[in-house]
Amino acid sequence: MALIVQKFGGTSVGSTEKIKAVARRVLGYQQQGNQMVIVLSAMSGETDRLTDFAQDIQKIPNRREMDMLLSTGEQVTIALFAMAVKEAGSDAVSLLGDQVAIRTDDMHTKARIKSIDTAEIKKNLDAGKIVTIAGFQGVTEKGDITTLGRGGSDTTAVALAAALKADACEIFTDVEGVYTTDPNICVKARKIDCISYDEMLELASLGAKVLDIRSVGLAKRYRVPLHVRSTFTENEGTWVIEEDKIMESMLVSGVTYNKNEARITIKHVPDQPGIAAKIFLPISDAGILVDMIIQNTSDSHLTDMTFTVMRSDYARAMEILKNVAREIGAKSVHGDQDIAKISIVGVGMRNHSGIASTMFQILANEGINMEMVSTSEIKVSCVVAEKYTELAVRALHDAFVLDKENMPIEEEF
Amino acid sequence: MALIVQKFGGTSVGSTEKIKAVARRVLGYQQQGNQMVIVLSAMSGETDRLTDFAQDIQKIPNRREMDMLLSTGEQVTIALFAMAVKEAGSDAVSLLGDQVAIRTDDMHTKARIKSIDTAEIKKNLDAGKIVTIAGFQGVTEKGDITTLGRGGSDTTAVALAAALKADACEIFTDVEGVYTTDPNICVKARKIDCISYDEMLELASLGAKVLDIRSVGLAKRYRVPLHVRSTFTENEGTWVIEEDKIMESMLVSGVTYNKNEARITIKHVPDQPGIAAKIFLPISDAGILVDMIIQNTSDSHLTDMTFTVMRSDYARAMEILKNVAREIGAKSVHGDQDIAKISIVGVGMRNHSGIASTMFQILANEGINMEMVSTSEIKVSCVVAEKYTELAVRALHDAFVLDKENMPIEEEF
Repeated sequence: MALIVQKFGGTSVGSTEKIKAVARRVLGYQQQGNQMVIVLSAMSGETDRLTDFAQDIQKIPNRREMDMLLSTGEQVTIALFAMAVKEAGSDAVSLLGDQVAIRTDDMHTKARIKSIDTAEIKKNLDAGKIVTIAGFQGVTEKGDITTLGRGGSDTTAVALAAALKADACEIFTDVEGVYTTDPNICVKARKIDCISYDEMLELASLGAKVLDIRSVGLAKRYRVPLHVRSTFTENEGTWVIEEDKIMESMLVSGVTYNKNEARITIKHVPDQPGIAAKIFLPISDAGILVDMIIQNTSDSHLTDMTFTVMRSDYARAMEILKNVAREIGAKSVHGDQDIAKISIVGVGMRNHSGIASTMFQILANEGINMEMVSTSEIKVSCVVAEKYTELAVRALHDAFVLDKENMPIEEEF
Repeated sequence: MALIVQKFGGTSVGSTEKIKAVARRVLGYQQQGNQMVIVLSAMSGETDRLTDFAQDIQKIPNRREMDMLLSTGEQVTIALFAMAVKEAGSDAVSLLGDQVAIRTDDMHTKARIKSIDTAEIKKNLDAGKIVTIAGFQGVTEKGDITTLGRGGSDTTAVALAAALKADACEIFTDVEGVYTTDPNICVKARKIDCISYDEMLELASLGAKVLDIRSVGLAKRYRVPLHVRSTFTENEGTWVIEEDKIMESMLVSGVTYNKNEARITIKHVPDQPGIAAKIFLPISDAGILVDMIIQNTSDSHLTDMTFTVMRSDYARAMEILKNVAREIGAKSVHGDQDIAKISIVGVGMRNHSGIASTMFQILANEGINMEMVSTSEIKVSCVVAEKYTELAVRALHDAFVLDKENMPIEEEF
């Protein structure tokens, strides 16, 4: 008998009909002899409805009250789901974050889980019940309701699977799994059967939206086997597991792109100690996240500093930096919003040199100029002009033969 | 400094604009130096929306899960209200039933309050905050969410006022207060300034919908001064208080009517011990409530038994009784749905005889035939043909001069 935690997102439970369908599906898994813990999101549209109410009332909604408000969305879904299971002839019980209890810190709207009590869940599982738990929410020591922020329900599911030592954590979504790249721009994109936590972490941070990065990190830390799969088919999806359990590693597992960044360059910065802090401190004080940073090799004590920020922060960042440039005596500030970050990810890079240069060659063959490059142990990212996005993704996907499964790692790479 | 509990119903908080208006109003009371505890219902329409979801899913929704579902409605309102108070420049905190805690028994969907812990409320009041509390909900010893059934938010407000020893409990609604009769059918209807708990209990049980009967009973037991008033004006409403605090009692305080009942008569019932149980046991087993019961004086060992039930139960009751009549050897079963119960209520009746006969005379003067009569210490109810409802109400209202305040009690009545 396996213990399985499953999470269904908002579109999977977006109507009473869909909730009934999920209940029937879960019942099937239980009848196969599994103990089932089901984490649910709010019905699609519900969180927006509540957020609109809040913004009608308070310009910057109070965070504690925002959590009080938003946590109702998941509460509605789990109550309806428990009813659906009972109507289908089995037994279920719904539990809120504080009823479990899922204890968090008190950082409202983006709380972090501190501990999970599994006693109530186990008691109900042992009584033969399907246990459905509100995603996205927890409770502070004081008893205040918190929410876990973006992707919070995935985090709830993985954390529960870790605490319960579940055999698997299955994340049901509206796609079939994790793909070698975005099927919308590359018809040859292939669903990946198995991928390591580290690769998934890179893919998630690079813009693959199927899994929230926080839940992948949590799964890695507690070695929770993650299964990303479709709500609408019975097909196996993508397993995210430990690297040493994957029989044949791909050299490159996936190609991603991200069009949400903008590039900023400060020209002729005096090259002296502490100058980087002077530039980036006002930026981080304004709550603006910086992604890639490149400082060109300097000659004549002047250097160019280039980095990327979210496009939504671009205007604010430019304003701040124009002041900073004046103060530190830099020559000018230039920006470009029409960029894309193209990345390749694969654990095979750990043991194989030359992947980066292969990537550069492939892009060069297509006449695509690289504006920035950054690398980690298992990924290479290039910034290119936005108009080349699709071309670059397809060329890399082809060159690394990602449409073929288990492409052997050969030494000539 | 007074401590005031105020309750606003669903229509008073039916939109974000209305919630902001309530917040401004409450802020005004706080600025006058009062400590404010605000009990809120779900936004109008919300409970219906959730109930529709449930009925889509489970024919007879599970009661525990129904409470889990419905309790979200009030949670949304208190969160938005707390935001509105903060936006208006003061401080507020929202508390759920289990955060207070309001402990109940485990009779889901119609739980009864067992105890209220006032520590958390007092702590927040002492910190200068407006405390807003979800109406209609509580929590069991085990930690399950319960709801209090019809009129539950009124009950929450009165129970909180009792536990906090509040100076007053104000119920805000969409009418100006309690009227001598329904203003929709009698233009001379007058708002009552003060009324006793007992009179209000009778009015509520007879169909005056402004206050739920359970909350009036609770207010009486704990001597909580209740103030029923309008959300939409600043006018004083109706105070429901102890009888001995009302300077001049009215002989008759109000006239009510109820068109929701139907009359059933079983003819020629053998008049022997235990026969009433044989008739009414199958009815109560079917969950059908019986209101008035009249057994005519018997001759020749045969009697007629007449009683009223809710119109919604009429068809079921008739079916059951036809079988019963066969079994006990009664002659026949007759029913009439086109009836109305007209009642007069007043504590003055305690010390003045002849009120009932005055009522009968007034109805006779209008040519209205009475089909059934029942009396209590402070009320007289008559069943008449439904078509006479308005005529009867107006005639009684006129004859007992209810449009005049403080009509003296004179001995000739």
